[in-house]
Amino acid sequence: MTSPMIDLRSDTVTKPTAAMRHAIANAEVGDDVYSDDPTVNRLEQMVAEQLGKAAAVFNCSGTQSNQMAVRAHCAQGDEILIDESSHIVNYEAGGAAALSGVSLRVLRGRGGLFDVADLEGMVRPDNPHYSITRLVSVENTTNHGGGRVWPLAQMNRVADWAHDQGLQVHVDGARLFNAVTAGGYSAREFVKNADTVSVCFSKGLGCPMGSILVGDAESIRRARRARKLFGGGLRQAGMMAAAAIYALEHHVERLAEDHANARAFAEAVSTIDGVQLNVSDVESNLVFFGIEPKLGTAAQLSALLLKRGVRLNSMGTQRLRACTHLDVSRADVLRAAELVRECVSEGFGNLKDAATSAYSAR
Amino acid sequence: MTSPMIDLRSDTVTKPTAAMRHAIANAEVGDDVYSDDPTVNRLEQMVAEQLGKAAAVFNCSGTQSNQMAVRAHCAQGDEILIDESSHIVNYEAGGAAALSGVSLRVLRGRGGLFDVADLEGMVRPDNPHYSITRLVSVENTTNHGGGRVWPLAQMNRVADWAHDQGLQVHVDGARLFNAVTAGGYSAREFVKNADTVSVCFSKGLGCPMGSILVGDAESIRRARRARKLFGGGLRQAGMMAAAAIYALEHHVERLAEDHANARAFAEAVSTIDGVQLNVSDVESNLVFFGIEPKLGTAAQLSALLLKRGVRLNSMGTQRLRACTHLDVSRADVLRAAELVRECVSEGFGNLKDAATSAYSAR
Amino acid sequence: MTSPMIDLRSDTVTKPTAAMRHAIANAEVGDDVYSDDPTVNRLEQMVAEQLGKAAAVFNCSGTQSNQMAVRAHCAQGDEILIDESSHIVNYEAGGAAALSGVSLRVLRGRGGLFDVADLEGMVRPDNPHYSITRLVSVENTTNHGGGRVWPLAQMNRVADWAHDQGLQVHVDGARLFNAVTAGGYSAREFVKNADTVSVCFSKGLGCPMGSILVGDAESIRRARRARKLFGGGLRQAGMMAAAAIYALEHHVERLAEDHANARAFAEAVSTIDGVQLNVSDVESNLVFFGIEPKLGTAAQLSALLLKRGVRLNSMGTQRLRACTHLDVSRADVLRAAELVRECVSEGFGNLKDAATSAYSAR
Amino acid sequence: MTSPMIDLRSDTVTKPTAAMRHAIANAEVGDDVYSDDPTVNRLEQMVAEQLGKAAAVFNCSGTQSNQMAVRAHCAQGDEILIDESSHIVNYEAGGAAALSGVSLRVLRGRGGLFDVADLEGMVRPDNPHYSITRLVSVENTTNHGGGRVWPLAQMNRVADWAHDQGLQVHVDGARLFNAVTAGGYSAREFVKNADTVSVCFSKGLGCPMGSILVGDAESIRRARRARKLFGGGLRQAGMMAAAAIYALEHHVERLAEDHANARAFAEAVSTIDGVQLNVSDVESNLVFFGIEPKLGTAAQLSALLLKRGVRLNSMGTQRLRACTHLDVSRADVLRAAELVRECVSEGFGNLKDAATSAYSAR
Repeated sequence: MTSPMIDLRSDTVTKPTAAMRHAIANAEVGDDVYSDDPTVNRLEQMVAEQLGKAAAVFNCSGTQSNQMAVRAHCAQGDEILIDESSHIVNYEAGGAAALSGVSLRVLRGRGGLFDVADLEGMVRPDNPHYSITRLVSVENTTNHGGGRVWPLAQMNRVADWAHDQGLQVHVDGARLFNAVTAGGYSAREFVKNADTVSVCFSKGLGCPMGSILVGDAESIRRARRARKLFGGGLRQAGMMAAAAIYALEHHVERLAEDHANARAFAEAVSTIDGVQLNVSDVESNLVFFGIEPKLGTAAQLSALLLKRGVRLNSMGTQRLRACTHLDVSRADVLRAAELVRECVSEGFGNLKDAATSAYSAR
Repeated sequence: MTSPMIDLRSDTVTKPTAAMRHAIANAEVGDDVYSDDPTVNRLEQMVAEQLGKAAAVFNCSGTQSNQMAVRAHCAQGDEILIDESSHIVNYEAGGAAALSGVSLRVLRGRGGLFDVADLEGMVRPDNPHYSITRLVSVENTTNHGGGRVWPLAQMNRVADWAHDQGLQVHVDGARLFNAVTAGGYSAREFVKNADTVSVCFSKGLGCPMGSILVGDAESIRRARRARKLFGGGLRQAGMMAAAAIYALEHHVERLAEDHANARAFAEAVSTIDGVQLNVSDVESNLVFFGIEPKLGTAAQLSALLLKRGVRLNSMGTQRLRACTHLDVSRADVLRAAELVRECVSEGFGNLKDAATSAYSAR
Repeated sequence: MTSPMIDLRSDTVTKPTAAMRHAIANAEVGDDVYSDDPTVNRLEQMVAEQLGKAAAVFNCSGTQSNQMAVRAHCAQGDEILIDESSHIVNYEAGGAAALSGVSLRVLRGRGGLFDVADLEGMVRPDNPHYSITRLVSVENTTNHGGGRVWPLAQMNRVADWAHDQGLQVHVDGARLFNAVTAGGYSAREFVKNADTVSVCFSKGLGCPMGSILVGDAESIRRARRARKLFGGGLRQAGMMAAAAIYALEHHVERLAEDHANARAFAEAVSTIDGVQLNVSDVESNLVFFGIEPKLGTAAQLSALLLKRGVRLNSMGTQRLRACTHLDVSRADVLRAAELVRECVSEGFGNLKDAATSAYSAR
Repeated sequence: MTSPMIDLRSDTVTKPTAAMRHAIANAEVGDDVYSDDPTVNRLEQMVAEQLGKAAAVFNCSGTQSNQMAVRAHCAQGDEILIDESSHIVNYEAGGAAALSGVSLRVLRGRGGLFDVADLEGMVRPDNPHYSITRLVSVENTTNHGGGRVWPLAQMNRVADWAHDQGLQVHVDGARLFNAVTAGGYSAREFVKNADTVSVCFSKGLGCPMGSILVGDAESIRRARRARKLFGGGLRQAGMMAAAAIYALEHHVERLAEDHANARAFAEAVSTIDGVQLNVSDVESNLVFFGIEPKLGTAAQLSALLLKRGVRLNSMGTQRLRACTHLDVSRADVLRAAELVRECVSEGFGNLKDAATSAYSAR
């Protein structure tokens, strides 16, 4: 294959740019377990300030941030109210239960977004029969909900309700800056009523790894304990923190391009016969679309596209996801859409050996 | 108050009869931790045979049986497919997660019953992102599903599907003999394709305490470990096992009376203005009914009924449950229905201080 | 075998007397899950008052009481300071870790008793590298420590030290009334500085089952949650509580007989060649003694004694334990000692098929 | 302070060299969650081959490797036999219990090394009273045992014994290459009879972060699940893997210098009055020494040394540890020893405000 692969599996596949590699190579570092890493300390202070919170803790991954938040807010036997499509429910290996003994009570939102009406009656009475309801978790942008963006007013309604009930609020902001780009609010505005917020650096921001959890001092103190427990205490972590600082300074504004590319891809694909896609549903850098069963399965289409040079994840029997990011251009997404059209037109229902378990958690 | 209370909160409130007390007082006992209790051994063998399974383990409660089954089948990080209304999901203090690190993936059945169509696509791929799907759990009769009875063919479809997927099947048969009474099948027939089955002795069977878990030898061996871990290893447990043997011999056939009484109560109550109740939904000894909001709340009605001599649990803002059992007669349930009519007619919407957290897990 | 077995395995083997069976059969009961059982309520109030604590919760077993206490005081990641010989460390199936995520840091006491010098330096610093030290647990009488009795002053030193460090104190009083009988203090005096105390009814007190945990209101509230979680919420538990009340009224003073019988057995056995036993070590109803390896193993001696009509547990390769209780008389223990002498004299080193895993947790 | 600090707290404080930074900056990367990172794949294959094992998994830290191993070998309720001084027991936040429900049964070795005699009788019988003994864990070099090196024959005796009992064997080789340097065996020889082995890259090997766990295919498959669960799944992890490859190629042989420097420091310090240090105990790069109480506390000495330009951790009231590594030279350690002598001679017992919780887990 002469032309390079167009990889739309996830924005996690982005590779560090030359400039980011330079920032990494020249990072000032120390032993972060002794709190001696100046770059980590700078990043933590920078993001805490940007989000208007008291404290922050840099860590390995969005999953780790979320599970640290679970442990910061909850004890064994507690319960979290959370949309059924969310990452914590589906793609963190059952960690809330498996690591922390915490139950997830799922809400049936719309596109991963829920509102006060979905929450009413979901706080369990104080009685030994019941879990103790402790936390509401919000994902913005929603991933498997379709890359949807929480309206600010809805977030505030939900957070106010939660606090009125004595619950805490966590925001899984793995793609918070995508939400900000699309939502017409600042990150600080959005998380104003959240108790903890995770942000991931290895998605649209383009870092090799890393995430951060911000919140009040006590929650972050508890989260630091959890980080150590999970084996997430790093030493000269400043090299990776330097990438995050670079990304915050150079890769946030450009997310608008990814959104425009996602829209362009969606518009092209939506006109293909047998493809189900409502372009107005595409709010950020994620494009979910369906394939009519008579054409074949999503796994078959994905397998055929792979042969033509496009990577796309199947997300169910008939559903696929394309994700735009800094390593794909407008030309790439249009070419990819063209190849989808080609494959659908040629037919893929007879394809054997399609990978059955392609997934994209993030 | 001169006339005794009519207690329809739950069949768990039944008190041992004189004959059952006699059986308890005269039980032959030994130290069951040393496997020396002949009455426990007899009960375990008797129920294992009746249900056509290799082994059984007597224990303290339906909750303990279920949590022993969770631990017999699952390890930390595993997941159970289960109806959202079920006891394990709602009334066992989040035990699957809190004790065993196991996640519950809820199905949206009808009246607590689900079918293969609800299960399709719910087994997670084999991949570190995901919990490992391990068990399907069926509750028969359903409790908060409305006292519904699983049809035999539906149970077999579900169990066959589960086994085809490599999953195990647990039956929460807290009220299995009610199901048998109503379902037109034997207990042995119903559980033929189940791997483990719990039965509770302290509900309609009228024992002071006790439950049993039956299944294959290896599952029960693992369950015995869990029982000990939970502090459920008893010494001269034969006294309570004697009550269970008595109940199996004398209290099973009479469950039909409870069902008839439930139907009679339902018929009477269904004719009251403002009460929502479909008599054909009443399949066993549980009667759920709604109250129009304009009349007041379920808690208020429950509180007023208590003053008149009837105990009924509110099960939500506008929903109540009445449960028939061996300590209430036909006359009692008709009197209770009459009192419901009286209360509704007089009105209860202004009642203050209604208990807000009345519950009935079982 | 014509004469009945003399069972010295444990005081857990005691069978309820006719009078206790009468108390059980005639107990006034209710549904304890609804807090409606008058006999349970009476027992809880009675023991709380006797021990000078605010609250109590009746439950199934000494193990359950202890694990409820672990959960009442500790969260995941916490640590308990406890003697290496204790029941919680060795005979509760690893429950502290397996159920509650709690670590045990073992002390090397003498006969199961430790002092402030053993505790110094054992509280871990407040740092994410470490567990959080939370509780000191004291067992009185010690079981595998040799049936030893804590001096009151030593208990108070340990408890004061713990409280000075901000730790809580739990007493595993499975045999607290044996300790009281031997120790020259009242139960109330001994537990004055303890935060929670478990007492077991199915050992020397002769009940079929049951234990109680007493303590401050908040600890007992948390313990009730744990009891439910473990499946230890019972319904008409008053039948078993009636046995406990009977035992507290009739079986406490007679424990002195068990102690005298233990001493008589020890004196007789200590004179046998090849037996290692220091009579002055026998402080309560437990007699541990060693067997010289040249004679054979403890399992072999235990197996031979079984053939002669005496049950004794081997507790290690060369160590055995005899336990006196209300079902063995002075004549029984002297006869048992005589049979030990006989077996030693005849030799047992060639015996095959000795049970290798005889144990006596309690 | 004009001269730079001599930092002997730990070999974790080493900063990446210019050459290592170059390797990091130029690493070929991919998304490791999709197994697409060629550098991670190369590192895993390289170390698996070097240690003679089937598989390997790169991860964040030595703690993460160890906890992944715990989860690979054990389930809730299992137990590990392990020296009381080891990292897993003391410095991983109680993770075995807190994350995996696993108990640690501590052995009292000598310098962290134990032998078959210490293990005899420590496998618990198969009985619901007991944890299930599952794993023996060996730390080489021992850290808090004193930087001691396991003799090959002793390791093999222990591993053979474990396998004979049906147990698995894990090696915490956080400083395995120090052990190899000192022990006269290859890494492959040492771990031949181990089932899993962790190696840390951020200690003497000088990487910013990273560890690897190697073992049989099934253990590593389970460990990968645990890594994801802990939030240790990274994306372009190849940057950090490149550092590890560089270190394996350039930083292993030079560990001998660290050992020689440790010896030189020890020799100098051992001649100071009031210092307790046996030079022959110094086998690798760790030097533990005691301070007579009349001089003051370890924390006070550590605080005074800090003012003079030397960082040394106190490891208990009267014990300190110095650790040599690639960022300290022979001149540095001799200067540090001289400063210790100076401080002891001047006296430090009156120093106020000494940090009380200085620690060095690694």
